Amino acid sequence: MSTALLTDHYELTMLRAALKSGAAGRRATFEVFARSLPAGRRYGVVAGTGRLLEALADFRFGPDELSLLTSTGVVDAETADWLAGYRFSGEIHGFAEGEPYLPGTPVLVVEGPFAECVLLETLTLSVLNHDSAIAAAGARMVQAAGDRPLIEMGSRRTHEEAAVAAARAAYLVGFDATSNLEAARRWDVPTSGTAAHAFTLIHATERDAFAAQVATLGVGTTLLVDTYDTREGIAAAVAVAGPGLGAIRIDSGDLIAEVRAARAQLDALGATGTRVIVTGDLDEHGIARLAGVPAAGYGVGTSLVTGSGAPTAGFVYKLVEVDGRPVAKTSVGKATRGGRKEVLRRHDADGVAVVDLVVPAGYRPGGGGGRRAAGGLADAVDGLAAAALDGPLPSVLAPGRLGAPGYDRPLLVPLVRAGTPVDPASTGATGLRRAREHHRAAIADLPAHARSVTFGQPCLPVISAVPI
Amino acid sequence: MSTALLTDHYELTMLRAALKSGAAGRRATFEVFARSLPAGRRYGVVAGTGRLLEALADFRFGPDELSLLTSTGVVDAETADWLAGYRFSGEIHGFAEGEPYLPGTPVLVVEGPFAECVLLETLTLSVLNHDSAIAAAGARMVQAAGDRPLIEMGSRRTHEEAAVAAARAAYLVGFDATSNLEAARRWDVPTSGTAAHAFTLIHATERDAFAAQVATLGVGTTLLVDTYDTREGIAAAVAVAGPGLGAIRIDSGDLIAEVRAARAQLDALGATGTRVIVTGDLDEHGIARLAGVPAAGYGVGTSLVTGSGAPTAGFVYKLVEVDGRPVAKTSVGKATRGGRKEVLRRHDADGVAVVDLVVPAGYRPGGGGGRRAAGGLADAVDGLAAAALDGPLPSVLAPGRLGAPGYDRPLLVPLVRAGTPVDPASTGATGLRRAREHHRAAIADLPAHARSVTFGQPCLPVISAVPI
Repeated sequence: MSTALLTDHYELTMLRAALKSGAAGRRATFEVFARSLPAGRRYGVVAGTGRLLEALADFRFGPDELSLLTSTGVVDAETADWLAGYRFSGEIHGFAEGEPYLPGTPVLVVEGPFAECVLLETLTLSVLNHDSAIAAAGARMVQAAGDRPLIEMGSRRTHEEAAVAAARAAYLVGFDATSNLEAARRWDVPTSGTAAHAFTLIHATERDAFAAQVATLGVGTTLLVDTYDTREGIAAAVAVAGPGLGAIRIDSGDLIAEVRAARAQLDALGATGTRVIVTGDLDEHGIARLAGVPAAGYGVGTSLVTGSGAPTAGFVYKLVEVDGRPVAKTSVGKATRGGRKEVLRRHDADGVAVVDLVVPAGYRPGGGGGRRAAGGLADAVDGLAAAALDGPLPSVLAPGRLGAPGYDRPLLVPLVRAGTPVDPASTGATGLRRAREHHRAAIADLPAHARSVTFGQPCLPVISAVPI
Repeated sequence: MSTALLTDHYELTMLRAALKSGAAGRRATFEVFARSLPAGRRYGVVAGTGRLLEALADFRFGPDELSLLTSTGVVDAETADWLAGYRFSGEIHGFAEGEPYLPGTPVLVVEGPFAECVLLETLTLSVLNHDSAIAAAGARMVQAAGDRPLIEMGSRRTHEEAAVAAARAAYLVGFDATSNLEAARRWDVPTSGTAAHAFTLIHATERDAFAAQVATLGVGTTLLVDTYDTREGIAAAVAVAGPGLGAIRIDSGDLIAEVRAARAQLDALGATGTRVIVTGDLDEHGIARLAGVPAAGYGVGTSLVTGSGAPTAGFVYKLVEVDGRPVAKTSVGKATRGGRKEVLRRHDADGVAVVDLVVPAGYRPGGGGGRRAAGGLADAVDGLAAAALDGPLPSVLAPGRLGAPGYDRPLLVPLVRAGTPVDPASTGATGLRRAREHHRAAIADLPAHARSVTFGQPCLPVISAVPI
């Protein structure tokens, strides 16, 4: 299916007018950034990049799309002709998928002819805003869960296609599995699941239901024990499956007390290896509260797929440069900073990230190569950037570490050149596995307080050495 | 595309075990209901029904789906054979799409063999939970806007496919148009849009940009005037387009003050017919605050597509009856009420809805036909229901009114019989237009306080004459 109509009407009217005015061919740079993080969050997580590259390949205007656009009068014949040949020919740089980000730093940069780039605004933001919101919430749940496994099971609480993307985003940030089967087909995300309360209710007794499940799925299965009375449910579960039962699941009640009581009951029944899995409206705070009781794993639904209070990441897509000249709007409260930028994550002497530096693209401290900051602020900016950038660059990074003492890691990496993904392995199941690995390493490089799930401030300062 | 894998893993393992235990063929009734409304909401809105019927037609397990399920070991060969022939053969009743609902009342009832019904849980809830959340938020915005038109423009803030469904849900509850082009293709939703700040920035001057837009879209277009200085922007807009300019759009600043100033400036320039359109992080409360200033229309994005603080409707899908016998779980805090139910919306002497009655299916007061409430509570339930239901039924309803004095309107209507939609016109663009009309009429029948956007209580009491 073409993704071209997953787009706002005004992108097409802007195209139409720009083709007429001659602006269509001007070299444009758009940057994607978030003005702020949701209240209390210590970092965001860039997610959806792989999905965006997949969607970009299908961004084509075929007969169906053109028919809709011309019959409704959105575009004229000349614009339709132009669209029929549309293929993005520009460049995209971006944060690696899974990278933590701070507000005010560009996380994606789209460059090319204005007409080609402006059409990608809606789709780009839809994908990144959704997936990054889920990933940011999920990353906190993973930190709260520590070594205990997490299963994503929120498909029923969000749009059926958003559910597939949410399962992907959860896996990206460290969830172990999802309930969503389509995510397995598209990206090889591991799935899991056993039974709901309906399975118990459809049988004459709870014991009959457990026997049916064990007969089919084996004693290693997870039995849901709280349909009627949890104490009796656990007794029936062990009576049916024996002490080798894999796990029980508890979905209701005071979860802290329920887990303690279940563990004691299982141990008393000799089922010392039977794990206690907990579900039921958990979020990162609920998971953190369960750290002190012997829960063996968690299932998370609603709070994950709704971003735990922040269902969209708030990314915007802003024009910052035209034919090499910085441009910026000055709207009250929504001003932007002109000019193409780069982002460097600086590490301290212990190799811990300490600051994100936003510098003009190509800028080098001390004027050694690259271009200089423009305008009357140039000297001040130069001094700020030079001081911030001053420090030795290590020649070799420790294995598995993204940072090293004094290292300034460039966060914007090439994603698309001449309209084609730089690395074919950045999409599909391979891209997702890589992003998962990158996320794990990048989170480990942040200061320790970043990994707390309590309310806090952004975990790194952002120093912007760019003229306003 | 098949919708069959937009499903939780455990639906398939339950199926597999139920085929083995013999439970698969038992006659099951599942009810969909919400335990509560989001805090402060006075009603919910059922939405997504048409989309669900469309998705149901594509719920088939073809070679691709079966290959995923067998290769990952989710199902065995016997279950795969059963799935290959899957076609829902049961019945679905539900609230008409667009109907306001209160918590605790079943809004959808799925009946048929257990194996066929259990597979539909995830997809059903995904569609209804998403679309109803958007519709409930949108309905409040429509009430706040009064006669002023609303444009949905939140595509960029939500998953790219959720965006299409959100545009549909917004139109359903009375929005006038959407920015989303795919919603036009699928359901004939009207679209609109003109230009973003990038269009101004790509031109050498704001005046050049306005001239380019007017040259292409005519003087009836909407010019975005706040890229630099709004006062200068308005002056340039009228200078370029003349006093016949269709509209200006303001997206930043103190919107109340901006609208007043813009109106005065336009009038002073002779552009007395030029409308002032307002966008910029509006929600129902922001719209309500603008009622006293001469705004001519609103664009709403983020708050609409994220459900204005409540991104999911919280519907659950619970087994309530097996082979004619009520079943219910008794989990702490999550108990359900067994037995298939009906819902009647009672109207007072003025034809205003006053209560939703939940009664056992087929129940008639005084025992006149239908079945009686079962169990030891039968007498009390009979008395309560009979009292609630007592009253004359009008023979003719006023045109355009859903209720009439003393009328008890049955809210659950037949949607699917023997697996096929009862009314083919309940899907597609026709279904959406009908749902829009039904919503308008049904909202008008609620008590006046229901239409306030201030925080409140559910607007109707629910009397449940069903044994616990």
